[in-house]
Amino acid sequence: MGRVTERRKVVRIRDGAVSSRPDTLVAEEPLEIRLNGRPLAITMRTPGDDFALAAGFLVSEGVLAAAPDLVNIVYCAGATEDGSNTYNVVDVRTAPSVVLPDITLERNVYTTSSCGLCGKASLDAVRTTARWPIADTPPVRISPDLLARLPDRLRAAQRVFDRTGGLHAAALFTADGELVDVREDVGRHNAVDKLVGRALQSGDLPLSRSVLLVSGRASFELAQKAVMAGIPVLAAVSAPSSLAVDLAAETGLTLVGFLRGSSMNVYAGEDRVALPAAAARD
Amino acid sequence: MGRVTERRKVVRIRDGAVSSRPDTLVAEEPLEIRLNGRPLAITMRTPGDDFALAAGFLVSEGVLAAAPDLVNIVYCAGATEDGSNTYNVVDVRTAPSVVLPDITLERNVYTTSSCGLCGKASLDAVRTTARWPIADTPPVRISPDLLARLPDRLRAAQRVFDRTGGLHAAALFTADGELVDVREDVGRHNAVDKLVGRALQSGDLPLSRSVLLVSGRASFELAQKAVMAGIPVLAAVSAPSSLAVDLAAETGLTLVGFLRGSSMNVYAGEDRVALPAAAARD
Repeated sequence: MGRVTERRKVVRIRDGAVSSRPDTLVAEEPLEIRLNGRPLAITMRTPGDDFALAAGFLVSEGVLAAAPDLVNIVYCAGATEDGSNTYNVVDVRTAPSVVLPDITLERNVYTTSSCGLCGKASLDAVRTTARWPIADTPPVRISPDLLARLPDRLRAAQRVFDRTGGLHAAALFTADGELVDVREDVGRHNAVDKLVGRALQSGDLPLSRSVLLVSGRASFELAQKAVMAGIPVLAAVSAPSSLAVDLAAETGLTLVGFLRGSSMNVYAGEDRVALPAAAARD
Repeated sequence: MGRVTERRKVVRIRDGAVSSRPDTLVAEEPLEIRLNGRPLAITMRTPGDDFALAAGFLVSEGVLAAAPDLVNIVYCAGATEDGSNTYNVVDVRTAPSVVLPDITLERNVYTTSSCGLCGKASLDAVRTTARWPIADTPPVRISPDLLARLPDRLRAAQRVFDRTGGLHAAALFTADGELVDVREDVGRHNAVDKLVGRALQSGDLPLSRSVLLVSGRASFELAQKAVMAGIPVLAAVSAPSSLAVDLAAETGLTLVGFLRGSSMNVYAGEDRVALPAAAARD
């Protein structure tokens, strides 16, 4: 219930000087996500926005695509021996029309199997389950100058990181660079799920006019989450992985990495980046 | 099979100048870990050291504890339609004496359920499954000066990061600060699993005289992996989470965070850190 930070005693050592004082840490607790009463996944997350996290996770998994797919989300009581509510278990109830994933014994690896079995298979899986092919009309076009300004806007909006240094952040921007929403979490994927879940609940999916910025690296799973939410541009402050680049190229996602100062690398979908007309291209 | 990096074309933008060139990216591919033929988990990892990764994962899960527990590990062919080997599926065969986890439908969240259901329950689970309580005799004692030198030694040993900027690293040191082993992976947990798996295969568990250093943050899961391998000291370059600190305090693990230059924070197990005798303590 919003325990975003916690206080713990810490022994500080600074150039040989030792002191003991309370320190602020980012809170981390497990969240079990149930789908119509059946356990589906557990993620280590920073408490808060739990319903959005669950909803966004299910968008990434291809279960939810629009607000009417979702009937309600509740915290489950009784998860502890004394029956008290830990606020660490949520149950997502879906509309009867929603096609549920096959949660069987053979699929017991469901939790992290969003990637599929191998690089090729995973790309196929995303292509078949994505609700909104990234084919934006009119196309989103963003200048490098605008992209370069986004990280500072993200950092200005980060509230908890300054106190703990322990959070990943993700933010949604309009194609004009306006900050729409920012979420922080101890888990990089959770921050994106919280953004996407909020958008689902607000009826804003697909996010076909949005830019997603993440504070760290661009993994395959983050690229996949962007694709599943219909986001055309993913920008990361740090490096992408090979499979993230492959997925972006396959799906038409624009993938920008090492976005630092006025420098950046465009790994896929460069048609959405308005490159300087006079620039030399070799 | 050791595809640690891959090359992709990238459009570079530097202060308005645009160029196109090949770039080196960290490779990321899924690895399915099977236990005696049954799917257990999928993790996104950097190829290489896959058998060590699988073995270390199973140490963290409490399945393996010593080299004789492991019969063999093989790559599974036939995972693709044409029957070719993707080298993305490994099967771990255990000795008959090994107690296997309950992989049933109700436990289909096994993959990430090492954390248990809530903070309290997870701490209990770790306490009951840890093979080696951290009660080192004679106790490991490390000076802040020695700890301060470890991050530079880790960075000097990192090979791929310099080329890609996209890897997490983890290293094992002796209590005297000697580098024993270093692993890099796109996934922070995988780098630790690879270290621990190597140690299992070499008959070096428990790692009761070792210091584990990680290049990023100290999450609950990383602290748990240290405990399950019998490692008494976990040091992280960045912030720990609240649950990592709680687990360290519960199990007796020494947890050091923000290890930068001559500064560091000791969050738990400070008895193993040789604090300056004349230091003021308030």
